[in-house]
Amino acid sequence: MRRSRYFLPTLRENPAEAQIASHRLMLRAGMIRQSSAGIYSWLPLGLRVLSRIEQVVREEMDAAGCQEILMPAIQPAELWEESGRYQDYGKEMLRITDRHERPMLFGPTHEEVVTDIFRGAVRSYRDLPQNLYQIQWKFRDELRPRFGIMRGREFYMKDNYSFDIDHAGAVRSYNRMFVAYLRTFARLGLTSIPMQAESGAIGGDLSHEFIVLADTGESAVYCDPAWLDTDPLALAIDYEDDLQPVVDEWTRLYAATDDKHDPSTCPLAEDALYRGRGIEVGHIFYFGTKYSKAMGATVTDPEGNDVAVEMGSYGIGVSRLVGAIIEASHDEAGIVWPESSAPFAVGLINLRAGDAACDEACESLYARLTDAGIEVLYDDRDERAGVKFAEMELIGLPWQVAVGPRGVAAGTAELKARAGGEAEALPFDTVLARLTGD
Amino acid sequence: MRRSRYFLPTLRENPAEAQIASHRLMLRAGMIRQSSAGIYSWLPLGLRVLSRIEQVVREEMDAAGCQEILMPAIQPAELWEESGRYQDYGKEMLRITDRHERPMLFGPTHEEVVTDIFRGAVRSYRDLPQNLYQIQWKFRDELRPRFGIMRGREFYMKDNYSFDIDHAGAVRSYNRMFVAYLRTFARLGLTSIPMQAESGAIGGDLSHEFIVLADTGESAVYCDPAWLDTDPLALAIDYEDDLQPVVDEWTRLYAATDDKHDPSTCPLAEDALYRGRGIEVGHIFYFGTKYSKAMGATVTDPEGNDVAVEMGSYGIGVSRLVGAIIEASHDEAGIVWPESSAPFAVGLINLRAGDAACDEACESLYARLTDAGIEVLYDDRDERAGVKFAEMELIGLPWQVAVGPRGVAAGTAELKARAGGEAEALPFDTVLARLTGD
Repeated sequence: MRRSRYFLPTLRENPAEAQIASHRLMLRAGMIRQSSAGIYSWLPLGLRVLSRIEQVVREEMDAAGCQEILMPAIQPAELWEESGRYQDYGKEMLRITDRHERPMLFGPTHEEVVTDIFRGAVRSYRDLPQNLYQIQWKFRDELRPRFGIMRGREFYMKDNYSFDIDHAGAVRSYNRMFVAYLRTFARLGLTSIPMQAESGAIGGDLSHEFIVLADTGESAVYCDPAWLDTDPLALAIDYEDDLQPVVDEWTRLYAATDDKHDPSTCPLAEDALYRGRGIEVGHIFYFGTKYSKAMGATVTDPEGNDVAVEMGSYGIGVSRLVGAIIEASHDEAGIVWPESSAPFAVGLINLRAGDAACDEACESLYARLTDAGIEVLYDDRDERAGVKFAEMELIGLPWQVAVGPRGVAAGTAELKARAGGEAEALPFDTVLARLTGD
Repeated sequence: MRRSRYFLPTLRENPAEAQIASHRLMLRAGMIRQSSAGIYSWLPLGLRVLSRIEQVVREEMDAAGCQEILMPAIQPAELWEESGRYQDYGKEMLRITDRHERPMLFGPTHEEVVTDIFRGAVRSYRDLPQNLYQIQWKFRDELRPRFGIMRGREFYMKDNYSFDIDHAGAVRSYNRMFVAYLRTFARLGLTSIPMQAESGAIGGDLSHEFIVLADTGESAVYCDPAWLDTDPLALAIDYEDDLQPVVDEWTRLYAATDDKHDPSTCPLAEDALYRGRGIEVGHIFYFGTKYSKAMGATVTDPEGNDVAVEMGSYGIGVSRLVGAIIEASHDEAGIVWPESSAPFAVGLINLRAGDAACDEACESLYARLTDAGIEVLYDDRDERAGVKFAEMELIGLPWQVAVGPRGVAAGTAELKARAGGEAEALPFDTVLARLTGD
């Protein structure tokens, strides 16, 4: 993509309304624009990041045996009356009346709709387990939307719902999601820690929040320092296996948010604890037959009896992850994207656009990188070098390649990793080889 | 994908509520389920088709130099008061009041939001032209939703908006979209005909509807029979070129819907006309400064004057295309997917699941096809052959491969194209070679 044609309205000043780094940097880097309180438009750079994160989430869901569907945003109130949640949900639910005066709502979550789909489609235990997911925009009418897309009203979420014939099956489904979540966040370059969560009025002990470590996170986190050295991707996972040992291993180490942390029962001494801050990016939850009983989602078991299915629901805040990654990975100059969510892999800077030799060298590098399947943002504008470098630092692409008259004369370009490290003058072919891995 | 694990709730009976083929077949093939009037959930098979169509649309937009953004579903009413459309829009607009009693709406279209983004970001003619698109769920509260997703309330749409410094630039943008639309529909296997459309109260003569030919279409279509032999993909397009000659060539042939067709002025004799029916799948529209003037979207021109930008908007009904393709391509037994939108390329039928030799042959074919990057739905269920064949006909995958005991003994499988043609017994390697193109 040529910068001269790219719709990238960056800001030089820090926007006054932004209190946290991710909000500030997303506005400054031209990733989002506010449309109304807690509601944002995603501009090209932001949408690229969102789409990359979405794709990682999708791949891990598919690998875990889930199937993608897409439920509507606008739901009929009557389904929520069946489940008993319509009155309970409170003002965060955006209630709507259509032209025929029918009560509808903009879905904050989809347990009712998915249970309705399930009960209309599945009749027998032989068709279980099922695990259906969607990645979709939801709406929660927050009283005080803040922190940009971290606590917005319209937000992008992956939610899925498991259906099993019995408790043992539901635990297997839960464990698959537990592992899939660890893998998803790890692929995004995040250290995530599953923490036992309140399971609310429904009861049951299967509920974990996944907290990503970030200094600017909303919650205080206390955990065994061994967490920081774990790598969920190091383990080869077969989702057909019994994953209980994996889950046990991953829940063995101490971890708690401040509302759960109790020094008197914590197995680690205070000075042996890691203390940090974190952001909730996922939540998995087994709730049994709450919805299936209320809504009549039953299947016949092997003996021919009607049995209400055991369900769980699982959520990842996809748009929130954009903010969480930035909170976990930025510096004074801007965002530092991990490779897995970067909007482009390489920023190519022409230090003297209009100079024939510089233009030619840049065009050649741009074409060769693009042909190798590498996504490049090529700053071909007639702007000062300082402006271009500052913008590349701000938008945080993993690699910067700068081409100027002196380098071109010597046959070199400057290669720099955004995550740190000095710029290195290297022959063009070496730059290409480093970036393409050839 | 193994059929035994796939969430594919097909129906044997024709649903009483479905009046047209696409609605009937989408329900029967387990592609969608109604959630409330005109609002559907997309099940795995349907969502795969929708995603494939979306990707074709995206690729053609990108090729034409458009940039993808994503605007919110929920818009503030105040933007529509600025443009003057808030009162005018009528009951199709879903009006919403949030918890703070602010008037909002579920966007039926996004001229106001995109103009707001533009005016906050672009200041100079040097940053023009711009063409921003999104692919997104919209809502129009139809009085009588019908025909399934063809005239639903919640629908998936690609909409884009062009911004130019002057009329000549706007025409260039319009022509790019004209060509991109022809290419998009052609890639989807559809014959689309651009027809001059009413430009409404705004005036101007640049407005075309793209009508896809289908016997069950809503509008009568009259056109030069030469249309049926045209192939927009035969022409190599460079979007940097002047595309006026291409547009002229494509608008030279006579074509009109019944509300525009007038036998007294038609250049063709009545008996030389092709008469058919069609479905509107796209609309392109140049509207000048209607929104930019009302909303103050100006840039400075080379002389330093403030100029209201010239705009156009362009829409493709992405979810509607699913129905249009089915209307254009089905038979008594079910859907006949073109390759470009098929949910899977191949349906592999194990005619005797449980028979060791059949299972082994099928597993081998499944693995080899999948390894070659071909998407396969493998019917591994313990069901009668008749049931499996009927379902494959219904869901309409382009290729069927049937493996039974006699064939396995002879080292052959039966290969059949869904679009017609006899099943052919061929050695396994020949089947693979045919499907992989090796």
